Amino acid sequence: MGTLVLLRHGQSVWNAENLFTGWVDVPLSPLGEDEARRGGELLAEAGLLPDVLHTSLLRRAISTANLALDTSGRYWIPVRRSWRLNERHYGALQGKDKKATLAEFGEAQFMQWRRSYDVPPPPIPEGDEFGQDGDVRYADLGADMPRTECLADVVARFLPYWEEAIVPDLRAGKVVLVTAHGNSLRALVKHLDGISDDDIVGLNIPTGIPLRYDLDDDLRPTNPGGTYLDAAAAEDAIAAVANQGR
Amino acid sequence: MGTLVLLRHGQSVWNAENLFTGWVDVPLSPLGEDEARRGGELLAEAGLLPDVLHTSLLRRAISTANLALDTSGRYWIPVRRSWRLNERHYGALQGKDKKATLAEFGEAQFMQWRRSYDVPPPPIPEGDEFGQDGDVRYADLGADMPRTECLADVVARFLPYWEEAIVPDLRAGKVVLVTAHGNSLRALVKHLDGISDDDIVGLNIPTGIPLRYDLDDDLRPTNPGGTYLDAAAAEDAIAAVANQGR
Repeated sequence: MGTLVLLRHGQSVWNAENLFTGWVDVPLSPLGEDEARRGGELLAEAGLLPDVLHTSLLRRAISTANLALDTSGRYWIPVRRSWRLNERHYGALQGKDKKATLAEFGEAQFMQWRRSYDVPPPPIPEGDEFGQDGDVRYADLGADMPRTECLADVVARFLPYWEEAIVPDLRAGKVVLVTAHGNSLRALVKHLDGISDDDIVGLNIPTGIPLRYDLDDDLRPTNPGGTYLDAAAAEDAIAAVANQGR
Repeated sequence: MGTLVLLRHGQSVWNAENLFTGWVDVPLSPLGEDEARRGGELLAEAGLLPDVLHTSLLRRAISTANLALDTSGRYWIPVRRSWRLNERHYGALQGKDKKATLAEFGEAQFMQWRRSYDVPPPPIPEGDEFGQDGDVRYADLGADMPRTECLADVVARFLPYWEEAIVPDLRAGKVVLVTAHGNSLRALVKHLDGISDDDIVGLNIPTGIPLRYDLDDDLRPTNPGGTYLDAAAAEDAIAAVANQGR
């Protein structure tokens, strides 16, 4: 069966400013671009050369994929994109400062929004400057268009794309690169590793470090939890993500 | 019917060094990256926003498309790539200096290789450092894999992709961006505008300036010759290309 490689986008300009981003389409920071190139170097060093790319519709994931693939000599592979790989929609928190939100709402509410499995933030108001009303890339979504999401919502909208688009590539024996976001990749890892609703919220995926899963004929990982191509850097980064916003 | 937008890649590092490139996969120069971004600005200023992208398998075209689309806010559109949009394979001339080639073979032979419709350069030898033997992106081509090409060969291998991949997008009413190369775009323009074998060799398409074609129900241009989004810059650039290597 195929090989799955997950790559979380590098630092965006809003990550650097500690703002809730969600579906707001901000670019990578210069550091994020370096992370993406480093991800490509790790792919090349490991000889783990993607045959096909799946990305979200957000430029921080698209840029990360392009930089990593150009660096690893695989810029030319086929690409598929879907809103179903987008980051969690952060609802009314989009565009808000994380520290200010923590101060305003208190730690219990803040952590519930950030890390509960099934409690979404308040929906983003119509016409909000950080909403996606009228964004043509989502024009076909209709009732699927979220105004806020919890992680459970992300799992629900991610799984149809997994089954319809990613699994066929894996069954064809391909090396499949999925370049996406903290929460859409968490949804994928939850599904792959059979992680419980409670445990998934404590799992952090570092940026820019390819995470390899080798899958058996039932699409179960033969290396549960996956294998980071730079294990030491992943360990450091996971600790840093856990402390984000604190 | 749909709208077709052609974009020739910006300057590559080998354009800057005046080397024959063909299928050698060299990156854009910094100037070429600027040209690509400028192409994206022209698209955005004209409100000509692509719905779908077709590119070659060569990084100078892929980078040009990515920079132009990111600049114009359309990074997220669907992408298709094909070797049938690649630059003409320059055979044994790949990697050679244009001025040195002119001096070695004389102007008549040089111009025949560069500008005749149906005389290809000598084939590239097996194992040549500038050949594509063993390049996995072409592994499925089999007997279609060229060792050299004249413009007639490019027309012949381009047309099946036009019919099978680009025309359906146009018939669906889309704005279709084709980001490719001097000779694959020349093949396309020859077909669209019904240019003769003799006349097409004198036609130059400038780099980085989007060329718009509005098509009727028979896929004939209602604006024969197309419309450059920056007509003055196109005129200057066409003159510069015509003098290249002289």
